[in-house]
Amino acid sequence: DDLEGEAIAGEEFEEQTKLRVLNRALEFVPEYGWSMEALAEGAEAEGLSAAAAGMFEQGAVELVVHFVRECNTQLRKQLTEENARLQQEQDEQRPVEEFLRDALESRLRMHIPYMDRWSQAMGLLLTPQALPDSVCLLTELVDEIWFQAGDRSTDFNWYTRRGLLAAIYSATELVMIQDSSEDYEETWSFLEHRLANASLATQAASQVKQTGESLVQGVIGAAITAKNLAGFNQRN
Amino acid sequence: DDLEGEAIAGEEFEEQTKLRVLNRALEFVPEYGWSMEALAEGAEAEGLSAAAAGMFEQGAVELVVHFVRECNTQLRKQLTEENARLQQEQDEQRPVEEFLRDALESRLRMHIPYMDRWSQAMGLLLTPQALPDSVCLLTELVDEIWFQAGDRSTDFNWYTRRGLLAAIYSATELVMIQDSSEDYEETWSFLEHRLANASLATQAASQVKQTGESLVQGVIGAAITAKNLAGFNQRN
Repeated sequence: DDLEGEAIAGEEFEEQTKLRVLNRALEFVPEYGWSMEALAEGAEAEGLSAAAAGMFEQGAVELVVHFVRECNTQLRKQLTEENARLQQEQDEQRPVEEFLRDALESRLRMHIPYMDRWSQAMGLLLTPQALPDSVCLLTELVDEIWFQAGDRSTDFNWYTRRGLLAAIYSATELVMIQDSSEDYEETWSFLEHRLANASLATQAASQVKQTGESLVQGVIGAAITAKNLAGFNQRN
Repeated sequence: DDLEGEAIAGEEFEEQTKLRVLNRALEFVPEYGWSMEALAEGAEAEGLSAAAAGMFEQGAVELVVHFVRECNTQLRKQLTEENARLQQEQDEQRPVEEFLRDALESRLRMHIPYMDRWSQAMGLLLTPQALPDSVCLLTELVDEIWFQAGDRSTDFNWYTRRGLLAAIYSATELVMIQDSSEDYEETWSFLEHRLANASLATQAASQVKQTGESLVQGVIGAAITAKNLAGFNQRN
């Protein structure tokens, strides 16, 4: 009936409003961190009252989870467009290791505007509320990258691929928050070495189980380390 | 170019073949368990050689993850159709507790044909390879149920809702494998009591954090218990 229709329209409107505020709040993260303050500033910048940030029951967590989801979506678009372009130009596919390095670097570069606040973000992604989303978003990210890598990657075992890439992503993410080199060149060098080691490692069948375990354990371990680092490694 | 087109068509064909074999293999799970044997029987029943089961590198894990994904899809269809029907008939919505009980019961009833093998399935879902999928599939399930519960559920905190329902689902799943009562009536009674307790519990703000933690910890705890039970609680 009409009342129900209005209720559904109301929910959709609220969902849209939330997305507008979340996107806008990102501009205020460098100044206010992943926080209710950033959400309040985002709400005001969208012409709402600062109190509208009260829509978010777990403000900081929701903001960082939203950002990670947006980054994954952005990377998917980039890789899809790039693959379409390469296919149209009939260019030769790059070797898988090079493709993976570029994909991971592109994804991690999205953190740069928030780098001073990234150890806080990693800590929030490990709170009990965020953990299921964190695990699923990381799984989604590595699955998407392998999917886009396409038939270059058929010599790897599926579960090994997942675990390997998740572990490398998490480790590099952590190195990056401690990296003060020009344009994060130490981070990209670390990434390249980890990928080279990984493709050697997959040739040893005994590694399969260890790397399989690393997706969940890796993200948890990395975030605990990030939390410990946060105390004495704030860039600001 | 043509070769690339053929490679993509080949991948899609392989994906389709895998799905056919997985679906067919489910028929053989009651006899052979979640195993390469069930996959080999499924391949033969689909007119392939038993060796085609070699497509599955982690056979047993892939089979059970496939089944859980199919069940979630099936439940989504059921709930969507039911909600559409109720809206057309302008029937009054059931109270949220009743809706949740029915949704969880419908989902858990899908395990009945495989009940003698369900402790094995729960063990497999907890292996390092399956863990990311298990966490994401459980998150997806409870998110879908709350989404379908619609505006009945607005008095709960989102993260609490998730954690609560995941914990109740996992606990009931475990009770069910030990239940020898007629048509699992003890399981449905357990489910009803847990839901009633949960709605009382959410009124206490102090519960929020505990229940938030339960999604990941709950599924891990439940599966460890299931593994321990598996030794002395085989129904066959």
